Amino acid sequence: MIPRYSRPDMVAIWAPETKFRIWFEIEAHACDAQAELGVIPKANAEAVWKARDVEFDVARIDEIEAVTRHDVIAFLTHLAEIVGSDEARFVHQGMTSSDVLDTTFNIQLVRAADILIADLEALLAALKRRALEHKDTVRIGRSHGIHAEPTTMGLTFARFYAEMDRNLTRMKTARQEVATGAISGAVGTFANIDPHVEEHVCAQLGLVPEPISTQVIPRDRHAAFFATLGVIASSIENIAIEIRHMQRTEVLEAEEFFSAGQKGSSAMPHKRNPVLTENLTGLARLVRMAVVPAMENVALWHERDISHSSVERNIGPDTTVTLDFALARLTNVVEKLVVYPENMMRNMNQFKGLVMSQRVLLALTQAGVSREDAYRLVQRNAMKVWEQGADFQTELLADAEVTAVLSADEIAEKFDLGYHTKHVDTIFRRVFGEA
Amino acid sequence: MIPRYSRPDMVAIWAPETKFRIWFEIEAHACDAQAELGVIPKANAEAVWKARDVEFDVARIDEIEAVTRHDVIAFLTHLAEIVGSDEARFVHQGMTSSDVLDTTFNIQLVRAADILIADLEALLAALKRRALEHKDTVRIGRSHGIHAEPTTMGLTFARFYAEMDRNLTRMKTARQEVATGAISGAVGTFANIDPHVEEHVCAQLGLVPEPISTQVIPRDRHAAFFATLGVIASSIENIAIEIRHMQRTEVLEAEEFFSAGQKGSSAMPHKRNPVLTENLTGLARLVRMAVVPAMENVALWHERDISHSSVERNIGPDTTVTLDFALARLTNVVEKLVVYPENMMRNMNQFKGLVMSQRVLLALTQAGVSREDAYRLVQRNAMKVWEQGADFQTELLADAEVTAVLSADEIAEKFDLGYHTKHVDTIFRRVFGEA
Amino acid sequence: MIPRYSRPDMVAIWAPETKFRIWFEIEAHACDAQAELGVIPKANAEAVWKARDVEFDVARIDEIEAVTRHDVIAFLTHLAEIVGSDEARFVHQGMTSSDVLDTTFNIQLVRAADILIADLEALLAALKRRALEHKDTVRIGRSHGIHAEPTTMGLTFARFYAEMDRNLTRMKTARQEVATGAISGAVGTFANIDPHVEEHVCAQLGLVPEPISTQVIPRDRHAAFFATLGVIASSIENIAIEIRHMQRTEVLEAEEFFSAGQKGSSAMPHKRNPVLTENLTGLARLVRMAVVPAMENVALWHERDISHSSVERNIGPDTTVTLDFALARLTNVVEKLVVYPENMMRNMNQFKGLVMSQRVLLALTQAGVSREDAYRLVQRNAMKVWEQGADFQTELLADAEVTAVLSADEIAEKFDLGYHTKHVDTIFRRVFGEA
Amino acid sequence: MIPRYSRPDMVAIWAPETKFRIWFEIEAHACDAQAELGVIPKANAEAVWKARDVEFDVARIDEIEAVTRHDVIAFLTHLAEIVGSDEARFVHQGMTSSDVLDTTFNIQLVRAADILIADLEALLAALKRRALEHKDTVRIGRSHGIHAEPTTMGLTFARFYAEMDRNLTRMKTARQEVATGAISGAVGTFANIDPHVEEHVCAQLGLVPEPISTQVIPRDRHAAFFATLGVIASSIENIAIEIRHMQRTEVLEAEEFFSAGQKGSSAMPHKRNPVLTENLTGLARLVRMAVVPAMENVALWHERDISHSSVERNIGPDTTVTLDFALARLTNVVEKLVVYPENMMRNMNQFKGLVMSQRVLLALTQAGVSREDAYRLVQRNAMKVWEQGADFQTELLADAEVTAVLSADEIAEKFDLGYHTKHVDTIFRRVFGEA
Repeated sequence: MIPRYSRPDMVAIWAPETKFRIWFEIEAHACDAQAELGVIPKANAEAVWKARDVEFDVARIDEIEAVTRHDVIAFLTHLAEIVGSDEARFVHQGMTSSDVLDTTFNIQLVRAADILIADLEALLAALKRRALEHKDTVRIGRSHGIHAEPTTMGLTFARFYAEMDRNLTRMKTARQEVATGAISGAVGTFANIDPHVEEHVCAQLGLVPEPISTQVIPRDRHAAFFATLGVIASSIENIAIEIRHMQRTEVLEAEEFFSAGQKGSSAMPHKRNPVLTENLTGLARLVRMAVVPAMENVALWHERDISHSSVERNIGPDTTVTLDFALARLTNVVEKLVVYPENMMRNMNQFKGLVMSQRVLLALTQAGVSREDAYRLVQRNAMKVWEQGADFQTELLADAEVTAVLSADEIAEKFDLGYHTKHVDTIFRRVFGEA
Repeated sequence: MIPRYSRPDMVAIWAPETKFRIWFEIEAHACDAQAELGVIPKANAEAVWKARDVEFDVARIDEIEAVTRHDVIAFLTHLAEIVGSDEARFVHQGMTSSDVLDTTFNIQLVRAADILIADLEALLAALKRRALEHKDTVRIGRSHGIHAEPTTMGLTFARFYAEMDRNLTRMKTARQEVATGAISGAVGTFANIDPHVEEHVCAQLGLVPEPISTQVIPRDRHAAFFATLGVIASSIENIAIEIRHMQRTEVLEAEEFFSAGQKGSSAMPHKRNPVLTENLTGLARLVRMAVVPAMENVALWHERDISHSSVERNIGPDTTVTLDFALARLTNVVEKLVVYPENMMRNMNQFKGLVMSQRVLLALTQAGVSREDAYRLVQRNAMKVWEQGADFQTELLADAEVTAVLSADEIAEKFDLGYHTKHVDTIFRRVFGEA
Repeated sequence: MIPRYSRPDMVAIWAPETKFRIWFEIEAHACDAQAELGVIPKANAEAVWKARDVEFDVARIDEIEAVTRHDVIAFLTHLAEIVGSDEARFVHQGMTSSDVLDTTFNIQLVRAADILIADLEALLAALKRRALEHKDTVRIGRSHGIHAEPTTMGLTFARFYAEMDRNLTRMKTARQEVATGAISGAVGTFANIDPHVEEHVCAQLGLVPEPISTQVIPRDRHAAFFATLGVIASSIENIAIEIRHMQRTEVLEAEEFFSAGQKGSSAMPHKRNPVLTENLTGLARLVRMAVVPAMENVALWHERDISHSSVERNIGPDTTVTLDFALARLTNVVEKLVVYPENMMRNMNQFKGLVMSQRVLLALTQAGVSREDAYRLVQRNAMKVWEQGADFQTELLADAEVTAVLSADEIAEKFDLGYHTKHVDTIFRRVFGEA
Repeated sequence: MIPRYSRPDMVAIWAPETKFRIWFEIEAHACDAQAELGVIPKANAEAVWKARDVEFDVARIDEIEAVTRHDVIAFLTHLAEIVGSDEARFVHQGMTSSDVLDTTFNIQLVRAADILIADLEALLAALKRRALEHKDTVRIGRSHGIHAEPTTMGLTFARFYAEMDRNLTRMKTARQEVATGAISGAVGTFANIDPHVEEHVCAQLGLVPEPISTQVIPRDRHAAFFATLGVIASSIENIAIEIRHMQRTEVLEAEEFFSAGQKGSSAMPHKRNPVLTENLTGLARLVRMAVVPAMENVALWHERDISHSSVERNIGPDTTVTLDFALARLTNVVEKLVVYPENMMRNMNQFKGLVMSQRVLLALTQAGVSREDAYRLVQRNAMKVWEQGADFQTELLADAEVTAVLSADEIAEKFDLGYHTKHVDTIFRRVFGEA
C-alpha cells in the first residue's frame, strides 16, 4: 500500500484498531450466544461488552504478542485486562483463532466491497453525464489505431459506462462471495461449539454462515473476489489507455484537467502529460498481480495451512486500497476531462473523406458491381487520397467507372455524417434505458 | 492443447469445421434479417441456405486465405463457390469481419461452458455419493499438516462438493457473461446495418445482443470468463492436493484406483503413485495461466486492436479443453478413489489420545482452572505422549492437578469420538439440503 | 501451439520422432558406458546401435503405451522389437524413466535455445542495419505520448538493438541453465548406476552433468529459462508498441510492409493496419504467461512429483515455438518497415518550435534568470503557440523580458536541430562499438 | 510491505531519507562534472556539497510537493533552502527528472541486491553446515510422495545448497543488470548535457553508464531483475515445502525450532506447526506476483510513459523487503531445524524392506530373468508386504522362483543400506568441491 495511492476510508478498514474492534464484536456476540445456550454465565457475556466503548491499546497488544507469538491470545489477554480476567474467562471458549481471523477478514472485505461499489456508482454517474454531454460530438472511430468510420465521443463514454456497469454487477457478486462467517472450531466440526453461535454472530454482523468450513473459510471465495478486482482494474486500464491516446500530441482530442499550480515537467513547461491515466495504467497492473496468488491460496493442506495468510495480509489491503484510489482518480479524470470537439473534426478530415470508403464500397456493391470490382475501384481512389492528399469525393466523381454506376448525388450522400450517428439514440437507450 | 489431455467433444468445438459452420449460420441468419428489412432480395437470402447441409472444404478455404490473407474473405469466397457467386453477392453486406468472428467466439465459449457445466454436475454427483458413503468414516482433521481434531471423510467430500457447487454457480454466470453477439459494423455504430439484424441473429443463436459494441465485443466479458475457469482450476488443485496427501506412504488413507495392466514405475513395482492428481495439479496451473493475459486483453486501442486475437486463439481452446479434461479426470478419481478407513483410525491414534487435548483444555477451563493454568496442565501431559509415546488419557488420570478438578469419568468422556461427529448431520443438511 | 504462429524447425524439436530419437541416443550412450564399466556385455551395447538408422514407429509405441500406460516402457518395448529382445535386455538398466525424460527435455530446450539465439542474431542484424540507415533521420522524441525534444529514428532502432543484445546475452545464459543432464537413478543417489554413465552420456550429448539431482533435474533451472523467454517477449512487445504508435493515422511515421495481394480489411480498403505488430503484442502475452507456472513448478514434493510434467508438455513447445515465430516476424517487420522521414518532420513542427522550450529555459537560466522566472517566461510564450498556433521563436523575439537577456542570434541558435543530434555518434559507438 | 515481514536494513533503502540522500549525491556529482566542463561555476558546484551532512526535511519537501505536484522540483527547492538559492541555481541544469529518479531507483536496487546476496551467502553457509552434519543420515527418498529408495538428509540439504548457489549466481547477474545510471536528458540525446556528466556521476556511484537511454533506463533490465527474485522465491518455496512435509504428524522427520515461550495454537497445546515454512510458502507467492507486472512495464510508449512508476513504487520495496525477510527466516529455520534420524529410519521401514524392490528387480534381470518376469516376481512378493505387512526379504527367500536364481547371500546383499549411500561423497564433491 503506497500512501500516495490511498484514501483514508479504505485504509481505515485495514487499521489494527478496526481489526481489533471486529475481533471484539465477534467474541462478544459469541459470548451472548453461548450464554443464551447456557454454556457460559450470562453475567460473563454481559461483562465483555464493557469493552464496547474502550479504545484498544494496539501497542500493548503488540507487546503481549511479542511474548506469546500469537495474535489472538495477545488480544484476549488485553481484553481481559480491560474486562477483568475473571469476567473474561469464558471469552473465546470453544473457538479457534481462525474463527475470529477468517470472519474478520471477510468483514473487512465486505466493507471494502461496499466502498468499491460506491466508487463504481460515482464513476458510472460521471461517465453517464459525459456520455450525454457528448452524445453527438462526432469523432473518428479507429481500429488498429487507424481511422475507420465516424462515431461519437458519447458512444465512447457510453461503452465505458456499460463496461463499468457490468463491473458493478460483478462487484456485488464478489461482495456476496465473501459475506460469510465461520465459528466452527478447530476443524470445522462444531465439536466444541454449537452451530447456533455461528448463526448468531453472522446474523449480528451481516454475514451468512459458511455452510461448511474447515478451520478456515474456503479460499475459492477469495480467489473469485480478487479475480473480480482484477477484471475491474483491467477496465480501468481500458479507459486510461483511451484517454492517453486522445491526449497524445498528434491526436489531442482530450486532455486531463491541468491545475493552475501544477508544473508538468521540470524542463518542458508546454507539456501537459496524461500522468493520471498513465498512473492508472500502472495501478491496474498492481491490482491484477494479486489474482494469481489469490488462486494459489485455494489449495490448502487438509483442513488448513497458513500459507495464504501472508499473501492476504498484503493483497487484502493493497488491492482494495489501490482499486479504491484508482476508481476515485478515474472518476475525477472523467469528470474534468477537457474534450476538444474541433480537434476531433480536424483529425477525421486528415485524409479527406477517406473514412467514407466503406460506404462507397457498399454503394457500389448494391449498384450491382461485384465485390471484387467494388473493392478495386474504392482502393484505386483511396490510394490517391492516401498518397497525394487528394479529396476522396472529388476523385470518385472523376472516376468514370464509379460514375457509371453512382450519380453525383448518390456519391455526395455517402459523405453525410448523419448516416453514421443515426443509431446513437438506439444504443443510448440500450445502455441507459429510456430517458 | 495437448492431445493426451483432451476430450473429443470439447476439441470439436474448436475445429475449423465448427467455426466455419457457425460463420455460415451467422451470415445466413443475417441475410434473412436483411431480406426481411428489404435491404437485400429474399431470393438471395434463401439461396444462402443451400449451403446448410454442405460440408465446407477447410483445405480450400485455407488455400484462398493464403492468397487473400484474410480469413473471412476466404470463407465468403468459398461460400460463393457453393451457393453461386451471383446468389451470394449480398452475403456479409454491411457487416465487418469482427461481427462474425466475435459472435462466433462467444458461441464457442457458450458451448464450451455448457460442457463444463455438465462436467461440474457430474463431479458434484460423484462427490455427493462419496460424501454420503463416508459420512461417518472418522479420520483426523489436520491443520498445518499436524493432527488437530477428528472429522469425517464425508465432511471432506462434502466441503469439496460445496466448493464445486459454488463453481457451478460461477460457471453459469461466466456462461452468461459471454452469451452475447454483435453485428454492429466497423466501429459499432450500425451505420451500415440495422440493429434488427443483430437482434435477429442473436435470437436465432441463443445470444443476447451486446448493448454497445465497438468493432468488437468488449473483452471484460472474456476476462471474467477466463478468471472463472482459473478459480475452478484452483479448486481442482485443492482436491488434488488432498488426495495426494492421503496417498503418501506414511498416510495412506486413500489411493487412486490402480488398474490391473498399469505398471506404475519402470523400476519400483510396489509403487502406486497418485499420478492422476499430480497431473491435475499441473493442469490447474495451465488453466490459471490464461487469466492474466485474458485481463491484459481488455485494454484495446480505441474501437479495437487485434492484440487479443492470438491470445484467444490459444487460450480459448486450451483452457476449455484442459479444464474439461481435468474435471472429467477428477470425477473419475473421486468415483474410484479407494478409501482406507482402518488406516484413518491408525493415523488418528498415532499419538495416543493427543488429539483430544483441546477438549481437555476446555474441560479444565470450565471446571474453573484459569486458561493459563489449563494450558500448562494439558501441555505437560501432552509432551509425555509426544516424546515418550505415553497414552494421554492415562497420563491425565495420573496427574493430581488434573484429577483434582476432573473425575475419571469426566476425563473418559473427553475421549469419545461421537463428541466430534455430533454435528455432521447438521452440516450435511446445510450442504445437501434435507434428504 | 497454434499452427499459424509456428515455424517448422522449432516445431520439429517437439515432434514425437525427435523425442524418441533423443531417448534412443541416451539409452544407447548409457549402454556404451555400462559396457565400458563391465556392467553389461559389450555386444549388447553395440547391438542397440542397430536402431541408429531405423525410424521409430510412433503409432506402434502409442499402441504399447495404451496398454502399459508408461511411455518409457512402451518405447523400450518397441526398441526391443527392433534390436531383438535378447540383445536389448540390458537397455535402461539401473536407470529410471526420469533420467531419460529430463535429460531429453533439456536437450530439446537447448536446441530450442539455439534457434532462439539465431533468431535474436538475425533480429539484431536487421535492427543495426535500420539504425545505421536512419542514424540522422530526425523525429520528435516523446514522453507520455507528448512531444518532448528531437531525437533520431536511428536512436530508436539503436535502443532496440541494445535491448535485444541484452536479451541475446540472457538467452545464452538461459541456454546454459538447462544444458545439463542427469542419469542418477530413482532418487539421484546413483545407487544402481555409476556416475560415469551420466558423465559419458552428457559428454556425448553436449550437456554438463547435473551436480546433484533427485529423480529429476531441479526446476529452478527451467523457471529461469522460461522467465528469460518472458523478458524477451516483453522486449518484443516494446518494439511492437513503438511501431503500432508510429503507424497510427495521426502519426504515420512508419508502416508495416503491405504486400500487393493483401486485402487489409474486408470493408475499408484504404486501411493499412499494423496487424503484425498487434499480433506480436498478443504473442508476447502468450510467452509471458508461462513464467508463473514455470516458477510454480519449482517446489516439487520430496525427490519429485509429476505436477510439473503436464505444464512442461505445454509450455515447452508453446513458448519456444511462439517466441521463435515472434522473433522471426519481428525481424521481418523491422527489415521491411516503411519509414516516412517527411512525416516525422511534419509531426515535429506541429506546434511550431515548441519542442525547443527546454533549451530556451536553460538559456534563460544560464543568462542569470532564476529558475522560477525562466519557467514563467517560457510558459507564457509556449501557451501562445499551444493555444493560438503561434510560432515559438517569433513570440520569444517579441517578448521584452526575454530579449532583455537573450539576443536574437542566441534565440535562433536554440532552434538548431544539430544541437540535438550532436551526440548521436557517441551513442552509436556505445551501442555498436567503433565502426 | 508488511512490517512483520520486514527487516530494518532493507526497509531503510526505501526510506524517503535515503532517496533524497541519493538524489542529492547525483545532483552534487553532476554539478562537479558540469563545473569540470566549464558549464557552471566551480564555486556553485562546491556550494552544493554544503548539504552533504545536512539531514533533509522530508516533511518540508512533502509540503512543497503538495503545491508544485512535482517531487524533484520540491526537493530542489528544499535543497536551495539549505544551500542558498543563488548558489543552487545551477543544480539540475540540463538534466531531466528521470535522470535522477531512474539512477536512484537503480542504486536502491543495487543496494537491495547487495543485501540479498549477503542473505543468500548466509543461507548457503547454513545449508552447507547442515548438509555436512547429516551427510550420512539415511532417510527414504520419495517420488510422488511415495517411498522410493534410500537417500540421506545430507543430500537433501546439499541439493538445496546447489539450488541456492545457482540463485546466488543469478542474483549477482541481476545486480549487474540494474547497476547502470543515466544522465542523458529529456529524450536521451544528451542535447543539454554532456555525456561526461553521466560518466562522472556513474563512476562516483558505482554504476555503469547506460549505453543508450531514452528519458528512462530501459525496463527490460528491471524485468530481468524481478524475474530473478521470482526464481529465488520459488526456490525458497521448494525448501519450505520439504520441511512442511517432514514436519507433518505422520512423517515427523524434522521440526522447526519451537521456542520456549511460543504457544503454538490457542487451543491445541501439543501442536507444533510448521508456521515459518508455511509463511515462507506465502511470501514466495508475494515475491513472484511482481514478475508479470515488471514484464508489463517493459513496453513503454515512445521515449517513456510513466505507467511503470506506480508499479515500481510498490514492487521495488515490497519484493526486496519480503525476499530479504524470507531468506533470513529460511536461514534461521535451516540453522535450527530439529532433525529426527530415528524417525527417518522408522518411516523407511514402514513397509519392511519394500524400498529395496528396485535392487531385487535389477538382480533378477542380471541373473538372466527377463524384465517382464523379474517384474512379476518382485511385484508378487511386494504385494504381500504391502497388503499383509510381511517382510520383503523373508518373502523373497521363501519364493522358489526367486531362490532358483538368487542365493540367500545375494538376496541379503540387496538390503544393505551402504549400497545406496556409496556415491554420497562423489555428489558432495560435485556440490561443495574438494573438502
